Amino acid sequence: MIRFYSPDIELTGKLAADESVHCCRVLRLREGAEINVVDGKGFAYKARITDADPKGVSVEIIEHWREEKEWGKSLTLAVAPTKNADRMEWLVEKAVEMGVDEIVLLKCEHSERKVMRLDRLEKIMISAMKQSLKSTLPKLNGPVEINDFIESLKDVDALKVMGYCSRETERCEFNRLYKGDHDLIVMIGPEGDFSPSEVNSAMAAGFIPVTFGSSRLRTETAGLYAVAAFHTLENLSQ
Amino acid sequence: MIRFYSPDIELTGKLAADESVHCCRVLRLREGAEINVVDGKGFAYKARITDADPKGVSVEIIEHWREEKEWGKSLTLAVAPTKNADRMEWLVEKAVEMGVDEIVLLKCEHSERKVMRLDRLEKIMISAMKQSLKSTLPKLNGPVEINDFIESLKDVDALKVMGYCSRETERCEFNRLYKGDHDLIVMIGPEGDFSPSEVNSAMAAGFIPVTFGSSRLRTETAGLYAVAAFHTLENLSQ
Repeated sequence: MIRFYSPDIELTGKLAADESVHCCRVLRLREGAEINVVDGKGFAYKARITDADPKGVSVEIIEHWREEKEWGKSLTLAVAPTKNADRMEWLVEKAVEMGVDEIVLLKCEHSERKVMRLDRLEKIMISAMKQSLKSTLPKLNGPVEINDFIESLKDVDALKVMGYCSRETERCEFNRLYKGDHDLIVMIGPEGDFSPSEVNSAMAAGFIPVTFGSSRLRTETAGLYAVAAFHTLENLSQ
Repeated sequence: MIRFYSPDIELTGKLAADESVHCCRVLRLREGAEINVVDGKGFAYKARITDADPKGVSVEIIEHWREEKEWGKSLTLAVAPTKNADRMEWLVEKAVEMGVDEIVLLKCEHSERKVMRLDRLEKIMISAMKQSLKSTLPKLNGPVEINDFIESLKDVDALKVMGYCSRETERCEFNRLYKGDHDLIVMIGPEGDFSPSEVNSAMAAGFIPVTFGSSRLRTETAGLYAVAAFHTLENLSQ
């Protein structure tokens, strides 16, 4: 059964405008039809349409239940947006499909792009959440200065790693470092890599430089590899 | 240093036309400049330009060496092309960046797309090979009927798995099944999934139905997850 998104379903008993149009005009659902709704906060609802108004579908909630996420640890992916916005949008789509808790957009010294259309990213995230049958929408934060991001994590108990390309710094293999038994925060730098001073600040705050194998991966590929490897290793540790 | 691709460098001492234009017109390299060239067969060359002709750059080879691939087992990704060609193109790009030995395009009963522009896919693969600093171009095969593909693997000694969505068939978790100690062949079905008869034929030929976690992944996301998980698990087993 198709899923609709309505963050305020419990309060308003209504679908949002976008979803109402989709429900009435595209899918042509009418009063009495049963639909599934998720609120993006981990709850799913079975509901019956009471007013098929394309400006705001009203529903009667039949039942609701909490859906736990399928992975046990938390994953934050902090990434410097790529020059080409499409590449960033696909990373976000795929990360949400595979599963991520928070996406942070970083502003770095060598960033080629410091603004992203957050409304577009959020739409992509909602669609990927529904597509992959999840009921929790990951957080989207930023753009934030990398130093502020590092500082904000000072007291956070998680494994913190940064994908770093320079061969001059000693780096760990991510696949061997992460045992799946900690929350994980991954930073991926821009096309021009992190600057040496960014690397120093991050390392001073506990970030470990890592490699994701010996291939040179583009920013968005490294980000997605990290998400997939997190799930593989976290799943194995259970 | 930028890498050029020339499959016949050793025989002809020349770059192909596309690469020659890029070398002379875009990068404006001239006689005497040193370049790196890969042949897509695992060899890399250091060469000096002797004639900067945009129709066919001639070079003198200074040295050449074999570059071993970074993973020890072989990975074949066989996938039914997605309805949207862009999604398939990105899967191919990302799979080559992360590392794959062979990509096979499958024709399935429920395939929404039975033709792909192989010339476009090959260009994407060459570009991803160079981008990720590899010197071996993965094989690209197909489109091939799924039953012919299954039959062709009858005597192949590898772990064979198929990503399958139906919950009615017992499925293994890929992360626990694959120990990184075998060559791996992964089949990913079309948007409409494999047909029951395709599943039966594949299982009879030794394919194991697997899940890649509990998220419902799109065709291209499942394909890329499999590639990333292969590398993580293969790397861990070493």
